Amino acid sequence: MADLSGNLLVAQSGGPTAVINASLAGVIQQAGHHDGIEEIYGGANGILGILNEELIDINEEKARTIQGLRYTPGAALGTCRYKVDFKHKPEQAAKDMDRFFEVLQAHNIRYFFYIGGNDSQDTSLKIREEAIKRGYELRVIGVPKTIDNDLPHTDNCPGYGSVIKYMATTVAEVGLDVASMATDEGSCCLIEVMGRHAGWIAAGTVLAKRGSATAAPHVILLPELVFEEDKFLAKVKETVAALKHCVVVVGEGIKDAAGHAVGADQTRLDAFGHPVLAGAAEELKELIQGKLHLKARTALVGYAQRAAGHFASQRDSANAFACGEAAVKAAIAGHSGYMVKIVRQVQPDGSIQWATDLQSLTDTANVERLIPRDWLSEDGFLPNEKFVEYAQPLVEGEVAFPIEAGLPKYAVLEKTKVEKKLPPRA
Amino acid sequence: MADLSGNLLVAQSGGPTAVINASLAGVIQQAGHHDGIEEIYGGANGILGILNEELIDINEEKARTIQGLRYTPGAALGTCRYKVDFKHKPEQAAKDMDRFFEVLQAHNIRYFFYIGGNDSQDTSLKIREEAIKRGYELRVIGVPKTIDNDLPHTDNCPGYGSVIKYMATTVAEVGLDVASMATDEGSCCLIEVMGRHAGWIAAGTVLAKRGSATAAPHVILLPELVFEEDKFLAKVKETVAALKHCVVVVGEGIKDAAGHAVGADQTRLDAFGHPVLAGAAEELKELIQGKLHLKARTALVGYAQRAAGHFASQRDSANAFACGEAAVKAAIAGHSGYMVKIVRQVQPDGSIQWATDLQSLTDTANVERLIPRDWLSEDGFLPNEKFVEYAQPLVEGEVAFPIEAGLPKYAVLEKTKVEKKLPPRA
Repeated sequence: MADLSGNLLVAQSGGPTAVINASLAGVIQQAGHHDGIEEIYGGANGILGILNEELIDINEEKARTIQGLRYTPGAALGTCRYKVDFKHKPEQAAKDMDRFFEVLQAHNIRYFFYIGGNDSQDTSLKIREEAIKRGYELRVIGVPKTIDNDLPHTDNCPGYGSVIKYMATTVAEVGLDVASMATDEGSCCLIEVMGRHAGWIAAGTVLAKRGSATAAPHVILLPELVFEEDKFLAKVKETVAALKHCVVVVGEGIKDAAGHAVGADQTRLDAFGHPVLAGAAEELKELIQGKLHLKARTALVGYAQRAAGHFASQRDSANAFACGEAAVKAAIAGHSGYMVKIVRQVQPDGSIQWATDLQSLTDTANVERLIPRDWLSEDGFLPNEKFVEYAQPLVEGEVAFPIEAGLPKYAVLEKTKVEKKLPPRA
Repeated sequence: MADLSGNLLVAQSGGPTAVINASLAGVIQQAGHHDGIEEIYGGANGILGILNEELIDINEEKARTIQGLRYTPGAALGTCRYKVDFKHKPEQAAKDMDRFFEVLQAHNIRYFFYIGGNDSQDTSLKIREEAIKRGYELRVIGVPKTIDNDLPHTDNCPGYGSVIKYMATTVAEVGLDVASMATDEGSCCLIEVMGRHAGWIAAGTVLAKRGSATAAPHVILLPELVFEEDKFLAKVKETVAALKHCVVVVGEGIKDAAGHAVGADQTRLDAFGHPVLAGAAEELKELIQGKLHLKARTALVGYAQRAAGHFASQRDSANAFACGEAAVKAAIAGHSGYMVKIVRQVQPDGSIQWATDLQSLTDTANVERLIPRDWLSEDGFLPNEKFVEYAQPLVEGEVAFPIEAGLPKYAVLEKTKVEKKLPPRA
């Protein structure tokens, strides 16, 4: 079937998720079915490792380990936040591209799969365009991944279903804890979750309510809407008056009317030039204590939310795996320059069939999908039934994993390195 | 068997845990076996609710709900941090005691079980002493509960095994996440856990290592040892040089040589007069960024760590239930003024038999148990094999719970109130 013979390179990029390795397993296991694919290499630490010619020989790994990737969080190959940045660093980017294609050529790589979010899809597009320009025969397919769920065209992004399953569970549990301490003095608990521009994770915790008016979360603050201090404080006050407690879920990227991130430290930027955000819940805690004289506590789950393999969504994991498989099938069929997307097919009986399809990388790179306004309540403090209808199927089922001595036993790659053929990167 | 007939009152106090309701279920289900116990009442929100004559009629609850308490986190009856404080507020305390015994008498309560930590055992002792002084026939038994694991005499405290099972899992998962992002620039992740004076929770995360020198956590900071900035920074630097990343677990109550809590906000006190601690990890993050020029991130799991019913320890839950049962059996047998304790009986084949026994409340109230120094490495940065031998059995097995629509379905009490017989509390 494959008219193009050569080696396969798969890499992971950006923040890890609970199911990014399921996509990797999908690529590897599917690749094993095609004769046109000779060796299977993994890029260590994404594009950064590839530039350093750090390639992992996947065929040296045990089949059991590959199977174990289906329940192992973190990015098993290693990941990076390095970006080939033609816009801000054109000279370095041009040098990087030369080096990248030297590595591909040296190892006869003809299939390239990059598992990542917005920035990574952009990198895949650049590589696709460069390959054409250079006349280097290469099939490039992007595999979607991001807990932020902000990639366009795909029904959802692998990683998202698992993070909201875990966070909704956590919010429900914290809700029980805080409710049981609710006495007349009242209290407020603020739980900060990831999401710079899109509030998909924060919104997903609404599933904890199961439609109850009194269950946590009581207020969800989304980066999509302007943060209005007065309305927020009034809502907390009203909730505490009724329930003696209030659980607030805060998307880390919430902004005020002037566009300033609440609690952001604008003095520091991450590797992609985005400001470091980590203080929204803390700032709101101070506000609630100061203005409402209420006891307030925060929780900042941080990396734990995207790494929670011990309560990952089976639906999410299955979709992630299917995306990896679909990427290989598409490349073998001759496609290049696409991102795999997840398609939800609602059946006449209301059940859902999940499928994959392809979308041109030119449509997906650097586009962010936000929550539609009509999926939120009028006051904006809670997602409505349209959102719940969307999100509920994504958390269904639990990923099985082995347990040893009471703790999850995750898979670890041996990471046998492929012999280098090039001089070190300049 | 019971020579004393009357009603039973059970209440929960202090911070909830994943298994505090298992102890409640143990009390309730055991109480059902004894004719001397007529009605079973729950105090709403601990001693505070009892003073307000807020009693819940447990016999109105469905048997299914009581069974569901065995896997439901939070304190199902409600809890409080109110303390009958003879030391600092003797007048109020005397008034409270008068009121407490009025409530007991009005409802013919002859059995009182208080599920809680150090402060609650102290309250139980005071009630026991007052009952004798007043000639009111009452059997008082304390049921241990605290994630802090700092009650003396008991092998461990119900709640502790579950919190370290969850936190060790979380640290292992965050470890995979951070390790997969480890590139030459290096990074550090600081995970703050509860524990004011005792570092049992922080120490328990060492189980995530499974004896590996390279796996997370790499450094554990315990309140038992003086925090030394230079030694800590050197250890982080050394770890990052070797592994390109470092995962640090921080007990919230760590203190420097002058006795100042790292990151504490000394300006605010909680209801028991303890300073509010929430900033150790944040302060260390600033330190690492400033002095080592390393990227650092924090996670502050907060209430989520003690409410994580979705990955609770079956051993812990079984012990918690057994403590509840044992309390009732002891009272029926005529005992009063004791706390139930857990006893570990190591068998000749190395397996463990768990049992319960009684310890006088005079021995347990307001005594804190710390980690023995010889359970820690010489440099103090990691617990050693003695600690692991102690902690490992406490995380074994998983508590089963029903799942509905992808999320845990926890039990909720109906909370039918017992009719009040007294005028409101003055």
